[in-house]
Amino acid sequence: MKFTRKIPEGDTHERDVCGDCGFIRYDNPKVVVGSVATYEGKILLCQRAIPPRIGFWTLPAGYLELQERPEDGARREAYEEACADIEIEQLLALYSLPHISQLHLMFRARLVTPSIAVGVESLDVRLFEWDDIPWEEIAFPTVHWALAQYREALTDETFTVFGNPEGETGFMPEDDRKR
Amino acid sequence: MKFTRKIPEGDTHERDVCGDCGFIRYDNPKVVVGSVATYEGKILLCQRAIPPRIGFWTLPAGYLELQERPEDGARREAYEEACADIEIEQLLALYSLPHISQLHLMFRARLVTPSIAVGVESLDVRLFEWDDIPWEEIAFPTVHWALAQYREALTDETFTVFGNPEGETGFMPEDDRKR
Repeated sequence: MKFTRKIPEGDTHERDVCGDCGFIRYDNPKVVVGSVATYEGKILLCQRAIPPRIGFWTLPAGYLELQERPEDGARREAYEEACADIEIEQLLALYSLPHISQLHLMFRARLVTPSIAVGVESLDVRLFEWDDIPWEEIAFPTVHWALAQYREALTDETFTVFGNPEGETGFMPEDDRKR
Repeated sequence: MKFTRKIPEGDTHERDVCGDCGFIRYDNPKVVVGSVATYEGKILLCQRAIPPRIGFWTLPAGYLELQERPEDGARREAYEEACADIEIEQLLALYSLPHISQLHLMFRARLVTPSIAVGVESLDVRLFEWDDIPWEEIAFPTVHWALAQYREALTDETFTVFGNPEGETGFMPEDDRKR
């Protein structure tokens, strides 16, 4: 393939187009799926063993795979990162991080059992009471958002799906290298 | 790049990995954004001018672009397909079509004005009263789902985001060629 940047006929955006065969390579935003998963009110957090933000705490989440449903992806991530068996309840939030072309789908979920263990991408995993959450050591803005919104809808069976807090994009200085 | 299929160290899925430099090509599901957009109760539908399903009616929707927020993508698609100026209200539904690795985000929206016109991807565009919708000429299962769920939540300010109807994957025979 010999790609050059051009706007294909009838299209609105520049794409990589092969000069030999006309093949168009579409590049699209990636979907991250994760959960606020709880057991008797305690919230599952994972301490990151991999970059970015090694040593900081996050909710179990990761890229959705091909041919995977978002709910299945969120369950897989909870299992991979914390050996946790979770049941998805409903969609809590849809976040947009346009500067890194990511979409985050965060589900409200519950742990089927309190049994958790450190997965390969984690240094530690724990079930935190709200007041014990290490707020100063949270990995990403989206984790703050999801925790606050989880708390806001805590007793609501029906609620409007949350989005980015007003005016927030989730930008972090680290994101510059991922543009 | 000389790609071969292998599972990178620490990964769980097969990827295309370059034998020369180790570059890993991640391929992920694509996000489609669209809307059920109405003006005084009438619903905007577009008759498709492009494959698949030329001549059939659909809701304005299309692939989310890099660095685009889902709401902005849904507005862009309504403009491109029907020259419609819409305002997004809230997320109506999240659909998963795992067999073609697509995720659909459908928003509830309203047209700012009733002015619409045929866009380059449409043969015709119209505002339909519910009873006049051409049910036999709807392009995709997801359009049926979104219309029914829009109707179900019609007067609800707060509702739980809808998903695929029980047991439905949206599979169409045409999808086979896109696997």
